[in-house]
Amino acid sequence: MDDRTGQRIVPETARRPENRYGNRPTMKDVAARAGVGLKTVSRVVNGEPGVTPDTERRVQEAIDALGFRRNDSARVLRKGRTASIGLVLEDLADPFYGPLSRAVEEVARAHGALLINGSSAEDPDREQELVLALCARRVDGLVVIPAGDDHRYLEPEIKAGVATVFVDRPAGKIDADVVLSDSYGGARDGVTHLISHGHRRIGFIGDMPRIHTAVERLRGYRAAMEDAGIPVEDAWMSLGVTDPVRVRRAAEEMLTGPSPVTAIFAGNNRVTVTVVRVLAEQSRRIALVGFDDFELADLLQPGVTVVAQDAATLGRTAADRLFRQLDGTLIAPERIELPTRLITRGSGELPPSD
Amino acid sequence: MDDRTGQRIVPETARRPENRYGNRPTMKDVAARAGVGLKTVSRVVNGEPGVTPDTERRVQEAIDALGFRRNDSARVLRKGRTASIGLVLEDLADPFYGPLSRAVEEVARAHGALLINGSSAEDPDREQELVLALCARRVDGLVVIPAGDDHRYLEPEIKAGVATVFVDRPAGKIDADVVLSDSYGGARDGVTHLISHGHRRIGFIGDMPRIHTAVERLRGYRAAMEDAGIPVEDAWMSLGVTDPVRVRRAAEEMLTGPSPVTAIFAGNNRVTVTVVRVLAEQSRRIALVGFDDFELADLLQPGVTVVAQDAATLGRTAADRLFRQLDGTLIAPERIELPTRLITRGSGELPPSD
Repeated sequence: MDDRTGQRIVPETARRPENRYGNRPTMKDVAARAGVGLKTVSRVVNGEPGVTPDTERRVQEAIDALGFRRNDSARVLRKGRTASIGLVLEDLADPFYGPLSRAVEEVARAHGALLINGSSAEDPDREQELVLALCARRVDGLVVIPAGDDHRYLEPEIKAGVATVFVDRPAGKIDADVVLSDSYGGARDGVTHLISHGHRRIGFIGDMPRIHTAVERLRGYRAAMEDAGIPVEDAWMSLGVTDPVRVRRAAEEMLTGPSPVTAIFAGNNRVTVTVVRVLAEQSRRIALVGFDDFELADLLQPGVTVVAQDAATLGRTAADRLFRQLDGTLIAPERIELPTRLITRGSGELPPSD
Repeated sequence: MDDRTGQRIVPETARRPENRYGNRPTMKDVAARAGVGLKTVSRVVNGEPGVTPDTERRVQEAIDALGFRRNDSARVLRKGRTASIGLVLEDLADPFYGPLSRAVEEVARAHGALLINGSSAEDPDREQELVLALCARRVDGLVVIPAGDDHRYLEPEIKAGVATVFVDRPAGKIDADVVLSDSYGGARDGVTHLISHGHRRIGFIGDMPRIHTAVERLRGYRAAMEDAGIPVEDAWMSLGVTDPVRVRRAAEEMLTGPSPVTAIFAGNNRVTVTVVRVLAEQSRRIALVGFDDFELADLLQPGVTVVAQDAATLGRTAADRLFRQLDGTLIAPERIELPTRLITRGSGELPPSD
């Protein structure tokens, strides 16, 4: 995980021997299994009249048995329906997803497709409900920022040809394309930066422990501390919801405990903006590095040093892969990890206050 | 437009004599016109087999003639399909829409419905394409932040029972529910505030002149100046795209012209954040009031005085009305205008620098 000189492409181990899209059942397969003609299958699939209830049932049974799902761009274009892709976010109000969504939308538009968004509100059940609702509405592909950690519910859709790319966090329990930032390396860089400015008592405030990026960033924090030979105290680490009340309490406890921190590493932009508020109220100067850049970070006093992700490139890369899946030029799922970038602006270069 | 003591509800003049939803054609109407039974209409509408091509054509002609569209929540629930509503934004990356989207989503969720978003990217054609694509995907209702100024294309959908509420900006050329902020009054308040602190040469930088809110806010600026007996110079007013390059040039021209401004009123949050940057580079102190609150405005030096809209209440009010349309308890379109709130933080209370 050390050579972060640029974008890395790591082929995922294929758990299924067959090509993910190559074995997609066709209408011909359905017709053969049901013992009917292709036109009959077409009528049933497209909801056209002229099929007896008995025949329809036989076709439907074959469709279910084979996992057939009508879905190909050519058909869509023939029917005059607008192609569309879905984007499942975790929070519509998190500014991190703004540039990511817009980048996905721009790629979709370049391919003549509409983008439809929805939010899981960080709820795995809601994510599944939304993903399946989008599939039922015949999106051609999905870009998913997953809330859950088990995506086996998506396998029938993927097998049936719905292109799928995960972004920001990996898929759980299925092979799927994933595009993410190097959370581990970025956090390690940010904490190492604080250590290089003389800090030893450094706090970490992150998102909920079931979220992949939160765990990876905590791992990066621990690695930087271990590299520097600094034992980490439990009181310096806090994972949980990113609402201002929880983050404020976590920051205040670290700042006032028996072994108070002189610097804080904030695990994402939602955490950082609350920590900025808390630090503005302190009498001593506390150093801060935040994961994620945010608007106006450079105009605060001091400017906020951040580990920046490139949200637009995450979105664009994911969407590009989606359309490459759809046009058949991408076969095996891969994991693409984008590097982060440390931007120094003042808050991360403050010396320890004691 | 003067009595802004709270939320105002103004019944829109009904241009059509009939109730917007009361005359919605039913399957019975279609059956009568086509001379077939109700079951046959149901088969055609639901794409079920057992109808001859000739009969199907007759039913389809009746559907087209009457403008019938199957769409009612009861049917949706019977079929087990998840109810959904669509939200059409103008820019996925504008933070103003974050709390608005989340509020719409929360109301949708409380009604057991999914929210599907899309962005028009401020393009009227794109708006229409997206709206119709969402209708084709059987959303039960639409919350629209319009990019265009002619929404007659929506009339067949509305007649067919798609609930529709416009938010932030009114619909064009149709009667429809609209929920918006008092842009005129808010801008007038903000500019009056600058005048009360001694400013007479005040600049206005707003969004594109075809956008309703931009025009209303400019009107508020002009009214405040006229109330104070201050003649407005053309060089003090600039409308256009809100990208940083255009806004920066506009601000710099006002600050260096023959009659340089001592204060700027920024027409929305996208404009404000660029003006904040420009003002931070000036040698003299320029006062600033911005329309829209934004994150960290209070932590800048000086804090940024704003005319705040309540984006969450805009979204919640619009979504509430949408579901009241769907459950039949709302009949006539109304225009609801929410008051704005001046929040003083320092930048708007600076005296003129000359």
